[in-house]
Amino acid sequence: MADEAALSRVRVVLVGANHPGNIGGAARAMKTMGLTRLVLVNPKRFPDPEADARASGATDVLSAAAVHATLDEALAGTRLAIAVTARPRDLALPMLDAAQAGALCATEAAQGDVALVFGNETYGLANDEIIRCNRYARIDASPDYSSLNLAAAVQVLAHEVRKAVVPASPRAYEPVDAANHDDVEILIARLERLLVAKGHLDPADPKRLSERLRTLLGRARLSRTEVDLLHGVIGALEK
Amino acid sequence: MADEAALSRVRVVLVGANHPGNIGGAARAMKTMGLTRLVLVNPKRFPDPEADARASGATDVLSAAAVHATLDEALAGTRLAIAVTARPRDLALPMLDAAQAGALCATEAAQGDVALVFGNETYGLANDEIIRCNRYARIDASPDYSSLNLAAAVQVLAHEVRKAVVPASPRAYEPVDAANHDDVEILIARLERLLVAKGHLDPADPKRLSERLRTLLGRARLSRTEVDLLHGVIGALEK
Repeated sequence: MADEAALSRVRVVLVGANHPGNIGGAARAMKTMGLTRLVLVNPKRFPDPEADARASGATDVLSAAAVHATLDEALAGTRLAIAVTARPRDLALPMLDAAQAGALCATEAAQGDVALVFGNETYGLANDEIIRCNRYARIDASPDYSSLNLAAAVQVLAHEVRKAVVPASPRAYEPVDAANHDDVEILIARLERLLVAKGHLDPADPKRLSERLRTLLGRARLSRTEVDLLHGVIGALEK
Repeated sequence: MADEAALSRVRVVLVGANHPGNIGGAARAMKTMGLTRLVLVNPKRFPDPEADARASGATDVLSAAAVHATLDEALAGTRLAIAVTARPRDLALPMLDAAQAGALCATEAAQGDVALVFGNETYGLANDEIIRCNRYARIDASPDYSSLNLAAAVQVLAHEVRKAVVPASPRAYEPVDAANHDDVEILIARLERLLVAKGHLDPADPKRLSERLRTLLGRARLSRTEVDLLHGVIGALEK
């Protein structure tokens, strides 16, 4: 697993971008995922106020962007380049999906510079540009409409790179002030007494009602606050 | 594993979107991943030419969008709703990462309608809106700058949903017109004779040169066309 410093060695190379707004959007997408090295090959308009506007809080990525006349200059010093295309190509190169491309970038960036290369909004990359790369990647998309916005494509790949570098941190809900087992038992007993009193639960034949209430409350893993809250509710109903 | 029909049961709900351009961008992001059900709660401006422009080829998704006054109306009929937020919240709900949210949407959409709920560009979702959902999801982002564009966030989640529904189709490169083993042996033998003649390879002590050339050519898995091409190159060098 690479460390976060690897993110600083991932270049995002945009070849011939037509719309400065997309360059700004790409910069924003990169920065949200911790990528900072934007490289532009023959941008149509750059710098441009539209790029700044769409970059939002990522104008620092735009200011630091390198601009080159050729893809070879943009790739100088990289040990791995992955071209990103919207469609499969008839090329003698392995085609990765987005997650594989992100994982490969992450692994290789632990050892040196790598590049993700994106083509322009209308035509994508030419085959002559793709074969300057070592692999190519395709974001799996609907066959009916596979045209991702350029900044959106950068967002997807940048997200896959980040996932491979920084472990995500989902969390199941577990209460900080978890109620004790016995406190929950007391609550369930009180609820059952109430239901017996209301004629809804037959103590001689509880069927599955008791079991299901117990399962629901067990799965919810009540906090102490929630146990108190439910005692309040049951107390009100006992009157 | 859900089938592609499940994609038609995933609603993307945008609550209080400020910028029609982002609504259009979200529609485009959805359509590229095969999602079609856009639901808007109190959009600031909709319909709007800016939404159409950013939607590009996904104006059909905009035309079919439902507009509601409340989140509860937008979620009517869903069996699962997942709120998407930029930051962890202090809520008694499980927090998923983007891939988990996509996988859960895919599984549940096999059985009925599900929703991914996004807040507005400035404030995200209010806690009061999140607790109308069953889970919440956070796209793991840079702690320095976690502000994804709204359409970009939709793109990431839609991509995760699609990955969970439709198996991606990366492919290692394997040549269609693969050369036969013996043809490659003949090529290697010819190359080695040339290198011996040039004094670069000592047949009595080939060291690792032979082994490395053989490994490189084996890994490349030559096509018949490439074997012919290399015979041409070697032939020219023999003169």
